[in-house]
Amino acid sequence: MAFGWIDDQAELRRLAGLVRTLRPRPADSPLLDLASNDYLGLAHHPEVVEGAAVAARTWGGGSTGSRLVTGTTELHAQLERELAEFTGFEAALVFSSGYAANLAAVTTLAPHGSLIVSDAGNHASLIDGCRLARGATQVVGHADPDGVRKALRTHDGPAVVVSDSVFSVDGDAAPVGALAEASREFGAGLLLDDAHGLGVLGEGGRGAPHAAGLAGAEDVVVTVTLSKSLGSQGGAVLGPARVIDHLVNAARTFIFDTGLAPAAAGAALAALTLLRREPERAARARAVASELYTRFTAAGLEAVRPDAAVVSVRAPSPEAAVQWAADCRTAGLAVGCFRPPSVPDGISRLRLTARADLSGAEIERAVRVIGETRP
Amino acid sequence: MAFGWIDDQAELRRLAGLVRTLRPRPADSPLLDLASNDYLGLAHHPEVVEGAAVAARTWGGGSTGSRLVTGTTELHAQLERELAEFTGFEAALVFSSGYAANLAAVTTLAPHGSLIVSDAGNHASLIDGCRLARGATQVVGHADPDGVRKALRTHDGPAVVVSDSVFSVDGDAAPVGALAEASREFGAGLLLDDAHGLGVLGEGGRGAPHAAGLAGAEDVVVTVTLSKSLGSQGGAVLGPARVIDHLVNAARTFIFDTGLAPAAAGAALAALTLLRREPERAARARAVASELYTRFTAAGLEAVRPDAAVVSVRAPSPEAAVQWAADCRTAGLAVGCFRPPSVPDGISRLRLTARADLSGAEIERAVRVIGETRP
Ligand SMILES: Cc1ncc(COP(=O)(O)O)c(C=O)c1O
Ligand SMILES: Cc1ncc(COP(=O)(O)O)c(C=O)c1O
Repeated sequence: MAFGWIDDQAELRRLAGLVRTLRPRPADSPLLDLASNDYLGLAHHPEVVEGAAVAARTWGGGSTGSRLVTGTTELHAQLERELAEFTGFEAALVFSSGYAANLAAVTTLAPHGSLIVSDAGNHASLIDGCRLARGATQVVGHADPDGVRKALRTHDGPAVVVSDSVFSVDGDAAPVGALAEASREFGAGLLLDDAHGLGVLGEGGRGAPHAAGLAGAEDVVVTVTLSKSLGSQGGAVLGPARVIDHLVNAARTFIFDTGLAPAAAGAALAALTLLRREPERAARARAVASELYTRFTAAGLEAVRPDAAVVSVRAPSPEAAVQWAADCRTAGLAVGCFRPPSVPDGISRLRLTARADLSGAEIERAVRVIGETRP
Repeated sequence: MAFGWIDDQAELRRLAGLVRTLRPRPADSPLLDLASNDYLGLAHHPEVVEGAAVAARTWGGGSTGSRLVTGTTELHAQLERELAEFTGFEAALVFSSGYAANLAAVTTLAPHGSLIVSDAGNHASLIDGCRLARGATQVVGHADPDGVRKALRTHDGPAVVVSDSVFSVDGDAAPVGALAEASREFGAGLLLDDAHGLGVLGEGGRGAPHAAGLAGAEDVVVTVTLSKSLGSQGGAVLGPARVIDHLVNAARTFIFDTGLAPAAAGAALAALTLLRREPERAARARAVASELYTRFTAAGLEAVRPDAAVVSVRAPSPEAAVQWAADCRTAGLAVGCFRPPSVPDGISRLRLTARADLSGAEIERAVRVIGETRP
């Protein structure tokens, strides 16, 4: 039968205890959320919600076409201007998702004959970008600027170094400054995925590249998502105007994809406006993460020191991680559970996210539940 | 300099007259729209807009996480149930875009050792799916079931035949029934991208696979987009429940991407409800396309007979196509202009879209402007 081999794979997954199932959540979930990427607590903010609603009313339910045909509204242009201004880059280009933005950035910055130097811990969307790009990819060790140098030394021609600025699973930051130095020594470009940095790191949440003094640099391109700190959906590429023009002309996930829905653009724009007005939200998210980490390690749990808003706590096995997350849920706490094959290093962990709007009592409760349910 | 090679490419594009620029549109554009993919005229329908607004209010500006963590709301589950029911498939899985749905479907249905047989005219997202998949790809001629047979004959192991059901540029339909026959002869699966069929073809807009009697078939998987007839954003994969389960567990653009924004899900759901209540919209879109075609050919223009809502009119050269589209715009008419490199066959054309809500006077005006501005 046509898709018969699928059953074999399903059986293997079942035997390995690795079956994933969707769990639709109600609008009024009683769970305390330490699982989402809504780092600033903006997804439900009345201004963000109204930003979405007003945009839908003004511009319609969808953008109706590719960005180069009918899919660019003045709202998209405004969002691009404000994203560029906020992060300190010359220009920005908005995509339907952060995933699409990463595919676009990697493929268009790595032409035939070029080299991509890619961190071993990079996000799936960057890896897929490498696989789609015409250039050759060399994977280097995690957070290893000397490994980057070694890779660049072997290559003659255009090169781009690609890294998450904050790694999604463990929440550790890349050595962004050192990566920029290594890239520059060899005249290579640097592409940073600031999905988990925007809104959390840098002055008022301007992101990791801004914090590292790289904002607006000629040889740096940054991708962000609108779906985490900005509480919406979509992604963007930030960089020199000439690079952005290049993407408009060459990026397949831009040219052949319908433009971002107006409601998502409106929500992201409202979140950006809020973040400008309340820049302390960024520092608060970091402080909550730091407190969670301190409390976890004090309780003897093995956690990774958070550089942004993600706190990763190790579990002894995939089964233990799944059970731990389930027990948390039973106790009223939603946490992320990462295990193979979605972690490249094979280590299972709970992934907790700090939110700027978590109260002291909520932090208390989260710490208590995690401790009481530990395997 | 790091991205110096970009300037050389930009210069080549300029010399070839192939520079693309974004043209943000205002909310109250005076242009008559024959360029968008809003085939049923639903993007601005009050119920669709309210669907978006209410969903944002209820569920927030974003879904806040990956579908497997916090990104699945009951709204997503409802949309999946209704999409499956409407199109006649057992199950559905919603993605952040049609592009992401296509990447997911192709990569997960073509494991290592398998063969993908891909129509030469397939959409960029299917092609990128082929390039990301572990299986080998064999490109066959456009709409050529015998070519498919020939390709399948050479292969031993899992195979999947991949085709747009309606091709995006020329609007011609694939020989869907014949492709299913050819696939079945060899025990291969069939993957159809019904982006331009949903809402337009089949009984009440149930799509091309439904029209061909393939809805719910064990060996058929269909992708759709929520961004065209449904006036929103997002995509979905439809198929047997076991295939959908497989995607939940294996599709990278599902697992590693934030869930579709609630507003987009709400808009699509409202559009689907509307389409059920007003099934004549589908036939009306087809009738408008047919009328445009008849009028164009009567005026001596070279158009492709439309199988759905896209009407393609040939232009003598890329420059002529660009000038023609610009002259239409000056005369108050928005049309699409497709030219190399985004058309695989090198033929430049105007791409016009029929909308179910175009009035007789609007059709009249469109035909007059196209005729008066022809090169
Ligand atoms: C590091 C990183 N990059 C990119 C993405 C993709 O962004 P989006 O979910 O907006 O498509 C994600 C998460 O989803 C991520 O964690
Ligand atoms: C045939 C086809 N498939 C897939 C897509 C991608 O869908 P979306 O724009 O929703 O990502 C498009 C157009 O954009 C298309 O024309």
